[in-house]
Amino acid sequence: MQKKTFEKPIILLDKNQILRNLENMVHKAKKSGVILRPHLKTHQSHEIAEWMRPYGIEKITVSSFYMAEYFVQHGFEDVTVAVPINIHQIAQINELAGKCTLNICVENLTSAKVLVDHIKDPLNVWIEIDVGYHRTGVIWGDYETLKQLGSILKSNPCLNFSGILTHAGHSYHGSSIQDILNIYHESVERMKTVQEYFYSIGYDQLQISVGDTPTCSVVDEFDPRITEIRPGNFIFYDLTQCDIGSCKESEIALVTACPVISKNLDAGTVVIYGGGVHLSKERLNYKKRGTIYGLVAKLNKEGNGRTEPISNVEVSSLTQEHGKITGPKEFIESCQIGDILLILPVHSCMVANLHTTYYTYAGEPVKSFRME
Amino acid sequence: MQKKTFEKPIILLDKNQILRNLENMVHKAKKSGVILRPHLKTHQSHEIAEWMRPYGIEKITVSSFYMAEYFVQHGFEDVTVAVPINIHQIAQINELAGKCTLNICVENLTSAKVLVDHIKDPLNVWIEIDVGYHRTGVIWGDYETLKQLGSILKSNPCLNFSGILTHAGHSYHGSSIQDILNIYHESVERMKTVQEYFYSIGYDQLQISVGDTPTCSVVDEFDPRITEIRPGNFIFYDLTQCDIGSCKESEIALVTACPVISKNLDAGTVVIYGGGVHLSKERLNYKKRGTIYGLVAKLNKEGNGRTEPISNVEVSSLTQEHGKITGPKEFIESCQIGDILLILPVHSCMVANLHTTYYTYAGEPVKSFRME
Repeated sequence: MQKKTFEKPIILLDKNQILRNLENMVHKAKKSGVILRPHLKTHQSHEIAEWMRPYGIEKITVSSFYMAEYFVQHGFEDVTVAVPINIHQIAQINELAGKCTLNICVENLTSAKVLVDHIKDPLNVWIEIDVGYHRTGVIWGDYETLKQLGSILKSNPCLNFSGILTHAGHSYHGSSIQDILNIYHESVERMKTVQEYFYSIGYDQLQISVGDTPTCSVVDEFDPRITEIRPGNFIFYDLTQCDIGSCKESEIALVTACPVISKNLDAGTVVIYGGGVHLSKERLNYKKRGTIYGLVAKLNKEGNGRTEPISNVEVSSLTQEHGKITGPKEFIESCQIGDILLILPVHSCMVANLHTTYYTYAGEPVKSFRME
Repeated sequence: MQKKTFEKPIILLDKNQILRNLENMVHKAKKSGVILRPHLKTHQSHEIAEWMRPYGIEKITVSSFYMAEYFVQHGFEDVTVAVPINIHQIAQINELAGKCTLNICVENLTSAKVLVDHIKDPLNVWIEIDVGYHRTGVIWGDYETLKQLGSILKSNPCLNFSGILTHAGHSYHGSSIQDILNIYHESVERMKTVQEYFYSIGYDQLQISVGDTPTCSVVDEFDPRITEIRPGNFIFYDLTQCDIGSCKESEIALVTACPVISKNLDAGTVVIYGGGVHLSKERLNYKKRGTIYGLVAKLNKEGNGRTEPISNVEVSSLTQEHGKITGPKEFIESCQIGDILLILPVHSCMVANLHTTYYTYAGEPVKSFRME
């Protein structure tokens, strides 16, 4: 295991802030009586998953069967893969179903038939509902398809039709807390309508699974008909979440520490060792001030945390290994070659995916699974 | 080593096209009498580097000392790290200098002084020149800094000041072959001016290293004063290169093969298993028709290559694991769940960086180093 150095760009985690972010969500879920089944695609780390266990978290969500396998190897026994299945993965699904309580998503007749024909170990099937995001899922009013799916799933006793699941990803298109709340309420109403439809045709035990970080962050109390919520990003948060109103900048718990390798006073720029392969190419029109690839902070005096983002300083462009930072003259003047700048992420999941080890500010390495 | 399956998104390489791209560049370099020192950050694979050796390629370029280490372990003995040094990496630089002919870049006085104080093994130092890209490098007319750098480097006999190096990355901002040619000619004139300046103050053996895929692709014959060229992307090419005129779509040798997991006729979309963690978030306003994250082709009948991109079909958005493809009704209707779509990359280097294994169309795995 490597120790923390600044030989290359590394992720620094504020463990205390992570635990605060987690406690807030755990508390909210408890208050409403919903299960918190966090989406671990954000950190992809069994060590961070272990930080969650003392809060009673045993059920988890992931975004691939590879990630599911990794967390099962690390002792998790109830896993939801919240992406519609790829029918070329049946062998892997069967294998995993034998090792844990596996929850999978289906949203089309072709995939449902493949499951019926090939699944040999019991697993839970959730029908994914499109409540307005229009990425995947059966559209909430398409009762004909819902009915057919329910009926197909009955023909293989290994397939336990457990509930309906949605990701209201259009909450990310909101620009205020009210926008997000509106999407939450509309989504939940649509899910309840689907649940009632299924009830009317004889399915009486169906659970409802919802969840995305924006709605889970701003909703104070969840509808009693919701069984579980699946936010992921809340553990680290990021500038995208800040921008839409799900969190404050001070709640962002992940930064990438990058050394300054060049400065250009005339151009008003410094260049860090830290590019698209360390920070991802995710970008954002932050607070309507123009496209950025990150904001910039520094280590605090004690070295155990970071400052607030520095005013008017931003990551303005990225190439493979270089990041260009623009800022006012005083900032550029104050930067020295070798200084460590901390980059607040536009999208923490995408940054985390590029690193195999994180570090706490105290220097402890935290391993992650880097998925291909 | 895994075999080629479609359980997950995988990169498919057209080895014959790669060899044609390589041959073209090798031929051009030979004709002009310049050394081709390809930038291997594009593929990061010692196996692909081995495909290059029969063409006489022994000297290579990389973008980090980790990548340098990897290729040295695989038998390469002359390596340029074409990024200004990070002064926190001195221990690693010293170690590597003992193992190979190491070429490093310096562009500021602070880093030069750190080198003077700490380097204990002979290595070659190149001064990076900014010929107009304004990312890193000493600006071409700043003779005072150039002189000071030369002078500082003299004070440690391990530091062999070998030449001047530039990356005219502003060639990527061109929108025609003529734009790229103009940037090439201007860059070379500026490099020659710097070389002459150094000659006038007593440095008479300085080499000139240039190179980026756009200029190396469109220039027919290189200036005789150029020692070496360092293009990287040309091995795979991509839509960005097509867009600016460096290549044709048929020369793109890398695609990501992704299974269809969802389709929505009403919305005019299909969704693939293949998102930002497989394709990167690099985007492009392709041929001025709007932002895309890739174009879409299919396997040819023989399965040993791909079709041309399908008209009016494009990757229109990406989330972590999902890619949304939009296209005309006939295309959406023709797609079936489980179909394999081949995504032509916006930026092949960024896609390649997300995979640890590539596959040829014949199914042979090709390992790569995935750098953190």
